[in-house]
Amino acid sequence: MIAVYWVSLVTYFLLWKAYKHVSDIRATALRSSEPRAEQFAILVRDIPHAREGETKKEQVDSYFKAIYPDTFYRAMIVTDNKEVNKIWEELEKNRKKLLRAETIYAESRSIGSPEGVRPTTRTGFLGLYGTKVDSIEYYTEKINEITPKLEAEQKITLRDRQLSSALVFFTSRVAAASAAQSLHARMVDSWVVVDAPEPRQVIWTNLSLNYYSRTIRKYVVYTIVSLTILFFMIPITFITAFTTLENLEMLLPFLRPIIEIKSVRTLLEAFIPQLVLIIFLALLPMLLRYLSKAEGIPSESHVTRAASGKYFYFTVLNVFIGVSLGGSLLYNIKRLEGKPDAIIEVLAASIPYSATFFLTYVALRFFIGYGLELSRVIPFAIFHCKRKLLCKTEAEVKEAWAPGDFRYATRFPSDMLILTITLCYSVIAPLIIPFGVIYFGMGWLVIRNQALNVYVPSCESFGRMWPHIHTRFLSALVFYQVIMFGYFGVKKFIYAFAIIPLLLMSLIFAYVCNKKFYRFFHHRALEVMCHELKETPDIDSVYRSYLPPSLNSDKLDDDEYEIV
Amino acid sequence: MIAVYWVSLVTYFLLWKAYKHVSDIRATALRSSEPRAEQFAILVRDIPHAREGETKKEQVDSYFKAIYPDTFYRAMIVTDNKEVNKIWEELEKNRKKLLRAETIYAESRSIGSPEGVRPTTRTGFLGLYGTKVDSIEYYTEKINEITPKLEAEQKITLRDRQLSSALVFFTSRVAAASAAQSLHARMVDSWVVVDAPEPRQVIWTNLSLNYYSRTIRKYVVYTIVSLTILFFMIPITFITAFTTLENLEMLLPFLRPIIEIKSVRTLLEAFIPQLVLIIFLALLPMLLRYLSKAEGIPSESHVTRAASGKYFYFTVLNVFIGVSLGGSLLYNIKRLEGKPDAIIEVLAASIPYSATFFLTYVALRFFIGYGLELSRVIPFAIFHCKRKLLCKTEAEVKEAWAPGDFRYATRFPSDMLILTITLCYSVIAPLIIPFGVIYFGMGWLVIRNQALNVYVPSCESFGRMWPHIHTRFLSALVFYQVIMFGYFGVKKFIYAFAIIPLLLMSLIFAYVCNKKFYRFFHHRALEVMCHELKETPDIDSVYRSYLPPSLNSDKLDDDEYEIV
Repeated sequence: MIAVYWVSLVTYFLLWKAYKHVSDIRATALRSSEPRAEQFAILVRDIPHAREGETKKEQVDSYFKAIYPDTFYRAMIVTDNKEVNKIWEELEKNRKKLLRAETIYAESRSIGSPEGVRPTTRTGFLGLYGTKVDSIEYYTEKINEITPKLEAEQKITLRDRQLSSALVFFTSRVAAASAAQSLHARMVDSWVVVDAPEPRQVIWTNLSLNYYSRTIRKYVVYTIVSLTILFFMIPITFITAFTTLENLEMLLPFLRPIIEIKSVRTLLEAFIPQLVLIIFLALLPMLLRYLSKAEGIPSESHVTRAASGKYFYFTVLNVFIGVSLGGSLLYNIKRLEGKPDAIIEVLAASIPYSATFFLTYVALRFFIGYGLELSRVIPFAIFHCKRKLLCKTEAEVKEAWAPGDFRYATRFPSDMLILTITLCYSVIAPLIIPFGVIYFGMGWLVIRNQALNVYVPSCESFGRMWPHIHTRFLSALVFYQVIMFGYFGVKKFIYAFAIIPLLLMSLIFAYVCNKKFYRFFHHRALEVMCHELKETPDIDSVYRSYLPPSLNSDKLDDDEYEIV
Repeated sequence: MIAVYWVSLVTYFLLWKAYKHVSDIRATALRSSEPRAEQFAILVRDIPHAREGETKKEQVDSYFKAIYPDTFYRAMIVTDNKEVNKIWEELEKNRKKLLRAETIYAESRSIGSPEGVRPTTRTGFLGLYGTKVDSIEYYTEKINEITPKLEAEQKITLRDRQLSSALVFFTSRVAAASAAQSLHARMVDSWVVVDAPEPRQVIWTNLSLNYYSRTIRKYVVYTIVSLTILFFMIPITFITAFTTLENLEMLLPFLRPIIEIKSVRTLLEAFIPQLVLIIFLALLPMLLRYLSKAEGIPSESHVTRAASGKYFYFTVLNVFIGVSLGGSLLYNIKRLEGKPDAIIEVLAASIPYSATFFLTYVALRFFIGYGLELSRVIPFAIFHCKRKLLCKTEAEVKEAWAPGDFRYATRFPSDMLILTITLCYSVIAPLIIPFGVIYFGMGWLVIRNQALNVYVPSCESFGRMWPHIHTRFLSALVFYQVIMFGYFGVKKFIYAFAIIPLLLMSLIFAYVCNKKFYRFFHHRALEVMCHELKETPDIDSVYRSYLPPSLNSDKLDDDEYEIV
């Protein structure tokens, strides 16, 4: 009991310190950074229909000019880029192929005859059939053919495919930060403003979804996710049924001769079930990411956060509860026959038996997981395959070598799962504590190194991930306290009720943290944004950084946009 | 069942229309009004400690100048005015007495001798003993004595009694509206900004309460109010026990001879219990208002709203449920002895018997309530007493004649109680519908007239009361639906479950209304605030309108404030 209190109090203290610390870091980063494009922009959604004879651009310009006469710079209307993107991608593909053909040609000249062998290609499907043509000439011709088509399409897109959202640029950071927090229109379903995402994070297709479709999508996605979480339990239960060999022998007695071979037994007992589970869980994030995107969230980093939140609840509910209950349920299924009201007692008594499973799970995660992570064997192998078989140009080699993103969406929930496991078993089976300490200690060394020296962040949210982690951390703690309450209760420990004040404390702590720190992570505080920038920002380049590449043509100069 | 659906759907429709309508009115009022002081100001609370050698004023000025270099006008630090108010009140009292003495003297001259009789007063307690002196001379001397003391005290207050909150003034409405919605500091417990209340609404003593004390006070007040609501049930139950004479006879058989006198019986049955209840309820608002003020709310109109919300839940829970349950409980108390699980059935079956009580209640409210309201007999009587006995000067007569405020805090919850009663009994006892229609129809005529022609509003919140009414209206509707569900269930009506989708609909409707409309009632939309004002406002007079009268001296000119 005292141990539960100690663990909880120490956790509060650490969480409070951590929140404060991250908040400081966020403030410093926001304050002293060189001008960042997204600090000068806001995203406006749900723009109502323009009046007769007025374009969307005029409407947005006049609206914001009236409100911000001094600080409004210009607006960029979001357009439906599907068509223009298609053409632009084709152009890019041809450009790449041209470059590749030129590289092959240059290589052949340096190795073989001074004229070299001009590479050829077939015009048909996948270059497999059709007439043979000279690659360089063919692609150059194609590029020349597509370029004017792209330009025409760009003009059409900018003029006729304007959607009901826009990015609005301001000349000062404070104005943008303040605008993003203010209510502009009377009805909340029109002129909705939010912080603009970073240029590289914008999910263009989501920007124009209207308020109602966003709200409905959100609830539909939540429903789907809850159903997924609930019904994934079934396969997990089956998998874990096989993790204890006693279960297997009891249920399928004919397997006994095979299982009793010593080497098979050891192998089965130790690693296979955990491996199955890990692979099983690795398939899910794609689905969750897809679903989070379907909610209508405008920025990639927010999608990552949403997906990782869903994944956390999934792992805790399914892996942790699923394995604990599933394993003990099957073990006790025959004992329970006929007296179903004994289920709670039987469960509470048998939960400790899953401890071995989780011990192995944690150990596996740090031995194999960190080993793979640190050596980067798999990316290395993939890179070499790619270089040998696919890459021809310098750019392609670079692309294959790029370490990619940190993958918060899966890394963070699985760390949180280990944390939940460690917390929950810390009192029942204290042996798990050193494993947890080793896991997070090694994590500190390994992941820190990887984050600083290996991965290239694909987006910067200035610590917005933290409140998210904080909430999950606290819910793991509450979950731990609830389990302890149940455990003590079942053990007939008379002071079990003493956990209740601790639960209340957790809720109050969550409330206070949320009140005190959260708003700054959601909005940019004006106090922080009003610090002078070292260099005066070039607002035009800020504006241009948001242009989607398919629309960013040198030929479309400033006037083109003004006409629109 | 169909009737329940009809009533609910019509209510949704009306509520939606009403919300939209009120929102339009708010927008028009905010947009086209002549410049109002509170639209240029924000209230800043929880100002952190100033650095060494810096006054609060310098701190606030430099903070806001950095964020709003163009639109910041000046700041007014809230001071602890207890001392200066005391002196100022004494001065005002003496001024009034001087004016009164002069009026008496002038009257005596016009009636009697040309020199008249100079009024005298005694210097002791309440003018009852002590030496007799000439009133006019005595009060003039006193005023001359107090004035320099006041001026000295004003200076001390402005310099040394600065508290941790301030009113900040901007040169434009948009800047103020936007500033009030933005997060200024990283931590939510410092530099908290909100819309400034109207000058006449400011509750100065609440301004300087800090964030934590406000939060704690809020929860303490909520606890006290819930306890009050719960334990007021006991006296109400006793009162209603006497409303049905059958109960009385059954419980106190010795009263039978008195009750059976026909005239006594009629009187008792019809009016006394309702009168008791009405008087009983009239005493409560003062307590609730006091409690709401203790929450730390900075504006009077907000206190009114908070008090009326509490009063609504009080009336519904105690009058409506208390009377229904209390009356039937006592009626059935002997029948229930020994078989307590039959309580729900007995209750549901006997609730309709309270219908007579509520019919009389509604009728009484519109006969006596509106009669008193329209004739204004009581204020008229009070005015005449005052004029005869107390008023001497012109100003005093005017003050006695002033009709006062609309008293939302009690008027609105009691109307909502009638509405709840009408809704809940509309299907069980449809006879209540014409009573309800007459009540609100007459209310439309009477109260509209009173609001337009009689009362003088003491504050203007631009329709902020409405979302509040809307929520209570909806909760009355939900309450009605729940009661219907229980009623149909007890009546063994098999389609009772068909109410459940209606309950869901109510919740969704509440959610949608809240999402769509509420934010505009909480904040001022920039779109609305950016309309040009006809006359350019005089910001200095705006600033001066916020000066508390005790500090607003002609001698303290602009420089005085600057020095502070």
